[in-house]
Amino acid sequence: MGVPAGAEGLDETRIARAALTRLIEPGDATGAMIVAALGPTEGLRVATGSQQIDPAIEARLRSVLIGRGAKAWEGVAAAVERWRSRVPDLAPHRDLETIARFGGRFVIPEDSEWPDGFGDLGEQAPHGLWVRGEEHLPSQRSAVAIVGSRNATNYGLSVAGEISKGLVDRGVTVVSGGAYGIDAQAHRAALVTDGRGLPTVAVMAGGLDRYYPSGNEQLLREVARRGLLVSELPPGGAPTRHRFLRRNRLIAALTGVTVVVEAQWRSGARSTAHHAADIGRVVAAVPGSVYSASSAGCHRLLRDGAAVCVTDVQEVYELLAPAGEGLAGEREGHVAIHDGLAVEDFLLLDALPVKRGAGIDSLSTVAGLSAAQVRAGLGRLQLMGLCQQTAGGWRKTDKGGSAK
Amino acid sequence: MGVPAGAEGLDETRIARAALTRLIEPGDATGAMIVAALGPTEGLRVATGSQQIDPAIEARLRSVLIGRGAKAWEGVAAAVERWRSRVPDLAPHRDLETIARFGGRFVIPEDSEWPDGFGDLGEQAPHGLWVRGEEHLPSQRSAVAIVGSRNATNYGLSVAGEISKGLVDRGVTVVSGGAYGIDAQAHRAALVTDGRGLPTVAVMAGGLDRYYPSGNEQLLREVARRGLLVSELPPGGAPTRHRFLRRNRLIAALTGVTVVVEAQWRSGARSTAHHAADIGRVVAAVPGSVYSASSAGCHRLLRDGAAVCVTDVQEVYELLAPAGEGLAGEREGHVAIHDGLAVEDFLLLDALPVKRGAGIDSLSTVAGLSAAQVRAGLGRLQLMGLCQQTAGGWRKTDKGGSAK
Repeated sequence: MGVPAGAEGLDETRIARAALTRLIEPGDATGAMIVAALGPTEGLRVATGSQQIDPAIEARLRSVLIGRGAKAWEGVAAAVERWRSRVPDLAPHRDLETIARFGGRFVIPEDSEWPDGFGDLGEQAPHGLWVRGEEHLPSQRSAVAIVGSRNATNYGLSVAGEISKGLVDRGVTVVSGGAYGIDAQAHRAALVTDGRGLPTVAVMAGGLDRYYPSGNEQLLREVARRGLLVSELPPGGAPTRHRFLRRNRLIAALTGVTVVVEAQWRSGARSTAHHAADIGRVVAAVPGSVYSASSAGCHRLLRDGAAVCVTDVQEVYELLAPAGEGLAGEREGHVAIHDGLAVEDFLLLDALPVKRGAGIDSLSTVAGLSAAQVRAGLGRLQLMGLCQQTAGGWRKTDKGGSAK
Repeated sequence: MGVPAGAEGLDETRIARAALTRLIEPGDATGAMIVAALGPTEGLRVATGSQQIDPAIEARLRSVLIGRGAKAWEGVAAAVERWRSRVPDLAPHRDLETIARFGGRFVIPEDSEWPDGFGDLGEQAPHGLWVRGEEHLPSQRSAVAIVGSRNATNYGLSVAGEISKGLVDRGVTVVSGGAYGIDAQAHRAALVTDGRGLPTVAVMAGGLDRYYPSGNEQLLREVARRGLLVSELPPGGAPTRHRFLRRNRLIAALTGVTVVVEAQWRSGARSTAHHAADIGRVVAAVPGSVYSASSAGCHRLLRDGAAVCVTDVQEVYELLAPAGEGLAGEREGHVAIHDGLAVEDFLLLDALPVKRGAGIDSLSTVAGLSAAQVRAGLGRLQLMGLCQQTAGGWRKTDKGGSAK
């Protein structure tokens, strides 16, 4: 992108890109073309009107507009006019200080940490990514998106929790949108497991100085502490409806597979699925009862051939892993154990950790069962020799572990 | 097939084919080739050894064996040897009298009633079809197979009942295997509706002089009375395991679409689905809970891309109907009603007839609900103005009818 290699140039580039994230709406194609033609520093000057479009600049801009029709050039002037009202609010130094105060940083395409998957977004790629948390951003090859309805059913929450926890157990990062319902369950279950690597990333539609929705504040704080909160909006950016929809493309691009756990006939999760399909990512959907409106969107994706049917974490993992790696073993054994247990007990067995023990509350959250159900189930599993109580809480026995 | 056109020739052909169904196991390729080369009458004489294979006959037999390798010719001799022990038991006249005594008949490929779909079976086509019932055999263009597990769940029974009844309401014939579980529910629900056309066909794996399984005797009697019982085995033929598996190809060939409602990871229903795919029929599968072992086979078909996901009768009907005909209307309205009702009440509403009233027992069977659940649900639906009690029993109101 014609950026100077030195640290000073990189700082200048970072500051320009920070300003661009406040000036230009996510996914704005005209803004992307200006930056592609002129680079972020000069592009920002043109976008803010502080640099006139002289014949030399016009020629460079027109070169990236070739094949886009006569209207495209008019679009540049209209965009600069549109952005004018925001110019007085630009304060990239302050935004960078703010994110640093939150223990965060601003990652740009020029950084080695820039997610490989964003390349597939083309002119829809963000100008930079505001990040809170210590870990590096994940590669799409080791990240899976789990998305779904805000008003999820207990069934959906159970499935989301199992898949999320199982993926983190396999070293995969779970990416979601930080919303209520399936999103929150995916983040929560990812954080239950002992951390090796990056458990979870929440992609927000607004600035990272606030927690949205507020009911998820505690969860999102924990995501920032042990995982990552990311956004293409600078601190203070409001999560508008448009930004929520645009945000979904980042969830899709950050990951190798997008799993829709529950979705109504019309839903935001389906929007994420379509973004994923658009950039060549694998989309998977979890089936459910035909009587559940919360599964209607998943069934629609399956019926349209837009998604692969997945029923457990192993099937999801197979979609992510390169051929031959991490393939499911003999299937029948798995089903046989399934058949022998009540559904609740199977959920509970799946939720039980192998190493460190877990308490009733934690098991209740991951398995999507009440505390009473967990206590009763632990008794049954213990009788079957599948779990045991230790000083640190409940965990699987070797026999219980092989049942997975 | 070189059959004389006159009635006498047809009788001779029918008698020969009746004998062939007792002599040769279903789907035996060698038997099919002999009949293809020589016609049923002369083919029977060769197959029974009453006609020596002279050079002229050998030439005709070899002509249909071209391209099948050297072993094929040896197969003919071996088959004749294999069939020898059955020759003394051949009594086609008696078998034809027996089926007539049961109010039935023996339909052969030379009859105009011969199902169009059997053509796709090639050398796997039956030599004739033993039939009980008055209606003509259906065209595959107006018949759907509903198959599934013997040990079905309440969920599977409900879905099977709804789809079956809805298809018959649309003038489609429901074909199944007469077994316990999903099969029985499909037949039963098809018989609930006021009959116009042929409601249901049960394809049996043994002779039609007995009811198998015996627990379905009452149901199968009713199928014979108002629908059709069919088999490629003559009266007295035992339903062996091999014949059950071969029978599945007839279910697939008789219908335009095969719907698998519930199936274990390994199941006979999946066998029917594969037969259907082999002869180019549409296969559909109903999704369910990922925790239900009874849906694992359906999910496997969906995951493998071997089946289309269907969630209601309209989606099944669209797979059968020619393009543009019988397409689903505005989807949202359907889902909206769905959302407003408890699952049990929706099942019940769907089970309620539009014209003649139905009793608690009948509704209980079709909806897959207990009598107590039906009574409670009728009260709720009545309060919502969706159903009413008449002298003949409970039925939908106009408002309830539009909710479908």
